[in-house]
Amino acid sequence: MEDTGGMNRVKAAFQGERGAFSEDAARQLLGPGVVTIPCRTFEEMFVAVSTGAADVAAAPIENSLAGSVHKNYDLLMEHDLTIIGETNVRIVHHLIAPRGVALKHVRRVHSHPVALAQCERFLRANPQIEVAPAYDTAGSVKMIVENNSGEDAAIAGATAAAVYGAEIIAQGIEDNAQNFTRFLLLARPDRAASITTVSRRGERKTSIVFRVANKPGGLFRSLAAFALRDIDLAKIESRPIEGRPWEYSFYLDLIGDQHDAHVERALANLSELAESVRVLGSYGRSEG
Amino acid sequence: MEDTGGMNRVKAAFQGERGAFSEDAARQLLGPGVVTIPCRTFEEMFVAVSTGAADVAAAPIENSLAGSVHKNYDLLMEHDLTIIGETNVRIVHHLIAPRGVALKHVRRVHSHPVALAQCERFLRANPQIEVAPAYDTAGSVKMIVENNSGEDAAIAGATAAAVYGAEIIAQGIEDNAQNFTRFLLLARPDRAASITTVSRRGERKTSIVFRVANKPGGLFRSLAAFALRDIDLAKIESRPIEGRPWEYSFYLDLIGDQHDAHVERALANLSELAESVRVLGSYGRSEG
Repeated sequence: MEDTGGMNRVKAAFQGERGAFSEDAARQLLGPGVVTIPCRTFEEMFVAVSTGAADVAAAPIENSLAGSVHKNYDLLMEHDLTIIGETNVRIVHHLIAPRGVALKHVRRVHSHPVALAQCERFLRANPQIEVAPAYDTAGSVKMIVENNSGEDAAIAGATAAAVYGAEIIAQGIEDNAQNFTRFLLLARPDRAASITTVSRRGERKTSIVFRVANKPGGLFRSLAAFALRDIDLAKIESRPIEGRPWEYSFYLDLIGDQHDAHVERALANLSELAESVRVLGSYGRSEG
Repeated sequence: MEDTGGMNRVKAAFQGERGAFSEDAARQLLGPGVVTIPCRTFEEMFVAVSTGAADVAAAPIENSLAGSVHKNYDLLMEHDLTIIGETNVRIVHHLIAPRGVALKHVRRVHSHPVALAQCERFLRANPQIEVAPAYDTAGSVKMIVENNSGEDAAIAGATAAAVYGAEIIAQGIEDNAQNFTRFLLLARPDRAASITTVSRRGERKTSIVFRVANKPGGLFRSLAAFALRDIDLAKIESRPIEGRPWEYSFYLDLIGDQHDAHVERALANLSELAESVRVLGSYGRSEG
């Protein structure tokens, strides 16, 4: 379905506190009218969609620096949800403080250790600022605003500053500007058709997970199903299977919709060659 | 070279505080006599080996739950180091307290947020314990022992308890027992032959990074170099290339040594098919 231009009252579950990058992802995917539901854990987020408490979830699946979020691949295999969209969120870290607190007043900065580590250059240039690890980037903004000590700041995204009424006092302080997280939009298969995502661009993608028998050339033969039909691949990753040494499952994203005739034939072909194939969904991309 | 059974005075850099899982990895790889050098960041660790301040580094490269450590793949591409060993460290989390502090006294537990998240079941069953995020698992043990408040504990590995003279008061509290981190042992190519690793088992592996031209079937053709020679693959992962949309590099581990005749031929063949190929090293596995 195309963007209606109107308000989208879809309920989207995300993991984290309000103002988290995951909440940004939900808005990129569904527009500003989306109703966002914070969840404490990824499990809670999947359960919310499975039980119907939420219509969709925005799940981080890989980061350009930190790799695939295997946990969410595992949860995708455990739950019967389908991928209906994707988006990339650029992770930009800001130094954020309560209104009236300037950089020269800041003595302590709170954030998730991963975010603190990604702002090392800034922190080294400001040795008067002590670092304090926290659970959450957005949650640390909430905390410094509530406490308002006059010398505590947080590192988080711009949305967190807006949500908690705080100010950005140093912009884009991350070491590496090439920091993106890719999010998948997940829905129950019986509800997928009723969800409208925004501004989809480019070609559709299909994500699958498959296993091949443990013999040399098994992956090569499986990929023939796509290569012989000139189907482009956008991602492949092997993952060892728990308790079965030397056996692997593969995450694969291909260009095309599962209902395109040549993709349909390729997937049928793969089913002959692989031990198991699961299609996780076909979807377009929403831009930020 | 084989284990000499004697002391190994190799200097091994690792990232983290003393007692970290990375220090365990260095000992698994080099034996109990290894001299370990803590580094604050992965960069510092690579620089220590490149400049000769350390002989080797034990670098985490992937975790069974959290995926590949792209950062260390990037540093491998930037530095001229070679892989000379690998080992898997099982990540087992314990509740650790200063001597004399029992579980019933504990009111606060300190650890890295990732470790805290991996012990959710235990923490939910003990709601009297408040969680306090910290930079580091081992570092949080050091801190609770130094402060010795009588009600603070930490979550970390067994080595951290031993290093700081603390006690394990609840064992193996992680939710998922299938939590492994794979470490690579890295050395300067001119020093590699002089380093002795312990108890290598099984077949040797070779790790490479290669790029293929952006056309359908490019990966398939590249993998033919291995499939046609019955060479088994142990890992494959695509990674988008920064600033070059639709182009990918691939991390690939294969079974065999780069100097085995059939592997040598396969790599020569791959060089014809791929835009670039870099061999990161051939190595055996050390067991924990």
